[in-house]
Amino acid sequence: MEKEVPETGYDIPARPSNKPMIEAVEVDLPAPSLLDNTADLDRLARALYQKGFFPLQLSPGKMNEFVRKMRQNDLRFRAVVGYTGTAWEVLDLIAESPDVPVLGFGVDMGTSTLVLRLVDIACKKIIREVPVKNPQAAYGEDILSRIIFARDAGGLEVLRRLLLEACSDAMEKMLKSCGASALCVYALSCAGNTAISHFLWGLDPSNICREPYIPAANTFPIVRAAELGFDFLPNALLYLFPNVGSYVGGDIISGVIAAGLNRSNDVRMLIDVGANAEIVLGSCDWLLACAGAAGPALEGGVVDRGMQAMAGAIDSVRIDRKTLEPQFGVIGGGKASGICGSGLIELVAEMFSSNILNIQGKFNTRPDCARLRNTPDGPAYALALSSQTGDGFEMLISEVDIGVFLKSKAAMYTILSLICRKVGLKFYDLKNIFIAGNFGTHIDPEMAIRIGMIPDLPLETYRAIGNSSLLGACMLLCDRTLLAEAEKVRNMITYVELNVNVELLNEFRGALFIPHTDPKLFPSVRFPQDGPQ
Amino acid sequence: MEKEVPETGYDIPARPSNKPMIEAVEVDLPAPSLLDNTADLDRLARALYQKGFFPLQLSPGKMNEFVRKMRQNDLRFRAVVGYTGTAWEVLDLIAESPDVPVLGFGVDMGTSTLVLRLVDIACKKIIREVPVKNPQAAYGEDILSRIIFARDAGGLEVLRRLLLEACSDAMEKMLKSCGASALCVYALSCAGNTAISHFLWGLDPSNICREPYIPAANTFPIVRAAELGFDFLPNALLYLFPNVGSYVGGDIISGVIAAGLNRSNDVRMLIDVGANAEIVLGSCDWLLACAGAAGPALEGGVVDRGMQAMAGAIDSVRIDRKTLEPQFGVIGGGKASGICGSGLIELVAEMFSSNILNIQGKFNTRPDCARLRNTPDGPAYALALSSQTGDGFEMLISEVDIGVFLKSKAAMYTILSLICRKVGLKFYDLKNIFIAGNFGTHIDPEMAIRIGMIPDLPLETYRAIGNSSLLGACMLLCDRTLLAEAEKVRNMITYVELNVNVELLNEFRGALFIPHTDPKLFPSVRFPQDGPQ
Repeated sequence: MEKEVPETGYDIPARPSNKPMIEAVEVDLPAPSLLDNTADLDRLARALYQKGFFPLQLSPGKMNEFVRKMRQNDLRFRAVVGYTGTAWEVLDLIAESPDVPVLGFGVDMGTSTLVLRLVDIACKKIIREVPVKNPQAAYGEDILSRIIFARDAGGLEVLRRLLLEACSDAMEKMLKSCGASALCVYALSCAGNTAISHFLWGLDPSNICREPYIPAANTFPIVRAAELGFDFLPNALLYLFPNVGSYVGGDIISGVIAAGLNRSNDVRMLIDVGANAEIVLGSCDWLLACAGAAGPALEGGVVDRGMQAMAGAIDSVRIDRKTLEPQFGVIGGGKASGICGSGLIELVAEMFSSNILNIQGKFNTRPDCARLRNTPDGPAYALALSSQTGDGFEMLISEVDIGVFLKSKAAMYTILSLICRKVGLKFYDLKNIFIAGNFGTHIDPEMAIRIGMIPDLPLETYRAIGNSSLLGACMLLCDRTLLAEAEKVRNMITYVELNVNVELLNEFRGALFIPHTDPKLFPSVRFPQDGPQ
Repeated sequence: MEKEVPETGYDIPARPSNKPMIEAVEVDLPAPSLLDNTADLDRLARALYQKGFFPLQLSPGKMNEFVRKMRQNDLRFRAVVGYTGTAWEVLDLIAESPDVPVLGFGVDMGTSTLVLRLVDIACKKIIREVPVKNPQAAYGEDILSRIIFARDAGGLEVLRRLLLEACSDAMEKMLKSCGASALCVYALSCAGNTAISHFLWGLDPSNICREPYIPAANTFPIVRAAELGFDFLPNALLYLFPNVGSYVGGDIISGVIAAGLNRSNDVRMLIDVGANAEIVLGSCDWLLACAGAAGPALEGGVVDRGMQAMAGAIDSVRIDRKTLEPQFGVIGGGKASGICGSGLIELVAEMFSSNILNIQGKFNTRPDCARLRNTPDGPAYALALSSQTGDGFEMLISEVDIGVFLKSKAAMYTILSLICRKVGLKFYDLKNIFIAGNFGTHIDPEMAIRIGMIPDLPLETYRAIGNSSLLGACMLLCDRTLLAEAEKVRNMITYVELNVNVELLNEFRGALFIPHTDPKLFPSVRFPQDGPQ
């Protein structure tokens, strides 16, 4: 299921003045002589030192190969060097001609999905993107089950190998599909939550979920990828984003960097809806993170016919105000298999605006609606007819489904509201809110506002950023200053625990309504009784 | 053939203010809590940072083990850290109690003999010393033959493995003999000539002996010993002394450091007689090195009954001036198997002083000498009777043997003379001359002066330093400032080629006599006609 990428690739947003993590440096050495009998590798080191690459590291296993290549190429070649934060490692010596590309992989190691991008580092272009299921899910859909499984004898190793092999397989296929050699891959940049980072490294994650929630490691050395088992990438370094702690992983740090929160003078917000809803608020001066269980419903995981935003998912819905007949869009075209988060948002918004639902999310009794069904679970709306679905059954969205969904949207609004109040900010202080993930790519902010899921701000405030964790990982490949920036972000972020207290419950109860019990919070939203919207 | 070492070991000369390469740092971490939820390994890094160990490196393969040990020891333990020149690598976490020793090996990788010392780094004591034959000799006694053999397919790998296995076997035996675990070995410090350094690293040595004589590498990264094949030492770093070039190897640099030439305000000289005679002259301001083929005869390798200074070798000789009967000492007692370099020096000196030899090294005709024999090779002196030798044959030293030996001693004197003249020094400018190697340990300077092998200077000028290369390697373990010092020495040393020219030939011809054609050069030497000495 390779993602379509334009022929020319697409650009990674990078500050052009900053240099990439990996560089192919032109080297043209003077011939050795009796007067200058510096040893081959010292000659190489001297040339790189003169170009600013110092201190330099060479791995013992490479030295003979380098000496041979130096002499084979008559001392004119490109030295591929990789930055390790404190030194430069010589990764390869390649021909002078620029035909040999300098490649890297960005990897977002998600709980349910691994997304990999093949990056041309020198050109700062993404040339392939592939998502694959995280095969660890066989040992638990949620991360907690996997941490518990890892405590069994051999469990950690099973999870590590699954992750390693899934990534390796995907990488090999991507390289094959563009005719590139694994020898041209010089860097992997990976970001994941704290537990998955532990799995990749083969580190015991037990204490992540035991008070006082101490991970084994939050920062990881930069190593040769082969040291972690990527044997088919003998020339690559592996960068893994550091974690803040058990609750805030490297994927969040990577996302913060992608959204530029840490480089912004005004306060920005990043909303990442994955297995959890994870929010970061802040600027170049401070950063606050929190997480809440708002995710699954929004990603389509809880509702009966819910699914992720992929081919076959209904992702947009319009309902005729008079006939109450729906029109919908299906990702990839064809028949519908289910409905994703953004589809649900639009469905609920349209059902509300069409006066099918009241502000409590209950069905109004409208005998003249041909799409209403009575089911053992109560009333339901037939979004797709049997002729429009893949399985030949009508797609029904019941009052129970909508109730479940409203809890998620209320959780989301509550979290956003509480985190802003924590720092004494009003929503309108925010000029930029980045919505990450598949969810963010498909969501229509106007619809999300209409149901009261996100604050009622000018639509241009909201910006879809895609997979921010993956984007940050790819940006790191192309901008080595981000290595220090990631460490800085890690030290800046404060994690805020959202305690279940009276304040939160009151907020939540109000937010369960469409859009809210307090309509003043959503001045732009027109109610059905106000006339058509 | 383990060397006797006193029960308490013996001290390594080290500047007490300087810290060792490996340290066992007491760590007592505060318990993690909800308020301080720094990850385990970050907590370790923070504690070490506070004690000045920064930047810190951890190898991926060790991280789980460290987390487990931290928690097993209730966060109180000793962290063993090793210096890599630019960073600190955490090698092990061990119990708080000082029962676990911090060990290292110093290794002199000689062309014919490998000598290993087991060092207690924390106590700066040598606790075992073992010499073993360099098994590479099966592929060539001299280093050039081995370099040529290494060019054959697989040849380099054969030589590498032989060296690795000989060192590993010796180390394992030494550890066993003192009941120590290989896990307590945290460093190997190795010094050898340029070719042997290449063999250890598995680097192609071909160009060392091809004009313009460019080694593959002169400096070597500091790596985990297991990376070079020392798998049974999973906690050890490996330090290999850098080379100056094809002719001046890490063993010389190590020797210079052991003799303190580079720390001396006055000009010193280091004479190392091994397969070659290698000379370094200099002070803290400059260093000059040269080498010449004076070695084999002096190490006993050329003379018919010659042997190295080991059990069974005659190493001291006195001849009664009247009876011309010899008395001799045998290393280890018992019957004589051969004669070593220092034995030859004393024999020739005593034969000269007894008027058996004339100043040209020819036998005087003395019909009243019971020890004179006529052989097909000409006249000979029976040093040991058949009852005194291991093989039951008389040990004869012929005029031919003496001629060969005189060429070696003449070469030595010529080299010393030429290198001093190169820098405009007179011999008497030298207040300290260090004589290294087995040869230096057994030699009696008075005897060596008497035959004109070394300059006629006050006897206290000459100091036996033992195996200087091995000593320097052991000193490095106990003084981490020597790492930078070795690099500095490497850059300071100028190699001087002693060209075969008229000047050299004239010097050499004069030096072939006993002690010299110019007796003014040896005012302290009394000639037989002057009366008994």
